Amino acid sequence: MLNFLQQHRTVRKYTDQTINPELLNQLLETTCRASNTGNMQAYSIIVTTDSAIKQELSPAHFNQPMIMQAPVVLTFCADFNRFTLWCEQRQAEPGYDNFQSFMATAQDAIIAAQTFCVAAESVGLGICYLGTTTYNAGEIIKTLNLPKLVIPITTITVGYPETIPPKTDRLPLEAIVHRETYHEFTPNDIDQFYAEKENSQFYKDFIAENDKTTLAQVFTDIRYPRKNNEFFSEKFLQVLKQQGFLK
Amino acid sequence: MLNFLQQHRTVRKYTDQTINPELLNQLLETTCRASNTGNMQAYSIIVTTDSAIKQELSPAHFNQPMIMQAPVVLTFCADFNRFTLWCEQRQAEPGYDNFQSFMATAQDAIIAAQTFCVAAESVGLGICYLGTTTYNAGEIIKTLNLPKLVIPITTITVGYPETIPPKTDRLPLEAIVHRETYHEFTPNDIDQFYAEKENSQFYKDFIAENDKTTLAQVFTDIRYPRKNNEFFSEKFLQVLKQQGFLK
Repeated sequence: MLNFLQQHRTVRKYTDQTINPELLNQLLETTCRASNTGNMQAYSIIVTTDSAIKQELSPAHFNQPMIMQAPVVLTFCADFNRFTLWCEQRQAEPGYDNFQSFMATAQDAIIAAQTFCVAAESVGLGICYLGTTTYNAGEIIKTLNLPKLVIPITTITVGYPETIPPKTDRLPLEAIVHRETYHEFTPNDIDQFYAEKENSQFYKDFIAENDKTTLAQVFTDIRYPRKNNEFFSEKFLQVLKQQGFLK
Repeated sequence: MLNFLQQHRTVRKYTDQTINPELLNQLLETTCRASNTGNMQAYSIIVTTDSAIKQELSPAHFNQPMIMQAPVVLTFCADFNRFTLWCEQRQAEPGYDNFQSFMATAQDAIIAAQTFCVAAESVGLGICYLGTTTYNAGEIIKTLNLPKLVIPITTITVGYPETIPPKTDRLPLEAIVHRETYHEFTPNDIDQFYAEKENSQFYKDFIAENDKTTLAQVFTDIRYPRKNNEFFSEKFLQVLKQQGFLK
């Protein structure tokens, strides 16, 4: 099992093969067994296969081709709507229109998403997480008709892999794991953690293609620049207010 | 594998058996193979086994006994500190002190946490998520010496199960899964989704023990009341500001 989990790759190209609806339901049933806050199951999963709806979702994901190409697109949502409806029908006064409740349900949505990914990969499917979901949550809310107290957190495209891409690199464990408490890094630690990545021909070519002098600059100037991060921060905070999770 | 994932239980009581450090490292290495935003690996994992530090963490988790009883406590953190240090050492201008970056790194922390849980369960360990982490993030930050741009998102206690508790109930799949787009629920849908739960003797006893008339009231009045949710919302928003993720 550890070996299986270590084989994870992000799969962005899928064959034409559809996913058997019974198999998909089994994967979703498995997903719903995952840990969640207080067994409230305060999350929802929107399963989209219809190409007209995928077409409408596509711009929110910056037209990444996986949306149209994958047979199934799953949008995992923070969702206190169902639970709130239940409380209202049962002489109980719900109080989940706040940020702490959002954090709990957003976590549950991600726990479910990752459980789905492991389950899907175990039956030979390939998955890709789309980080664009929180960038353009407002647009996705419109397309998927999400009511108040529902916010899309992540999107997974899933299908049978056309090819299995190579494994991507990872930092050494000591860059991620701290023992007992957090140990702040020295400049020398940072140099060591990133040495293998920075010395690889793959990243050297990547820096040159992007016309930069360091790999970090590709992230700060092109992939995740401050200007974009701040723009999408403002947008997502507005969505939190609009959907009722923030005053 | 689907069958294995469906066997998940939350384990809150552990035997005295410690976790072999090599095995723990294997589980952590496996965890780090999981999907993450832009392969920035912007998260960290604090592994706490020292009982003095666990003792200090304990009140932040409302003295739930798992903290002291489990051989290993893992705190999964949103972390843009390391990445920011790297950018600064590489003539790149980081821009990750904002809410969108927080959402990305918080997601990555949870994806890692759930991957760890699956890996740990596959080798016979039992896990428990502690939702108290975001309630008292400020206190945990002090105990674990977390610098700016690092926030604890969830905590997992892990050890060998003393007993395997029974599986908990789940709502029917159609309460969680929406086809193509979101379909708002009728009062009748809600009644049907919750019927099995509400008719079970276990929950009938639970309602009586809590001196309530409906199960929903146990959640709204005792387990997750508005007053607490709003109090901890304010506290966590302050932590986001203090750690540099929110203006």
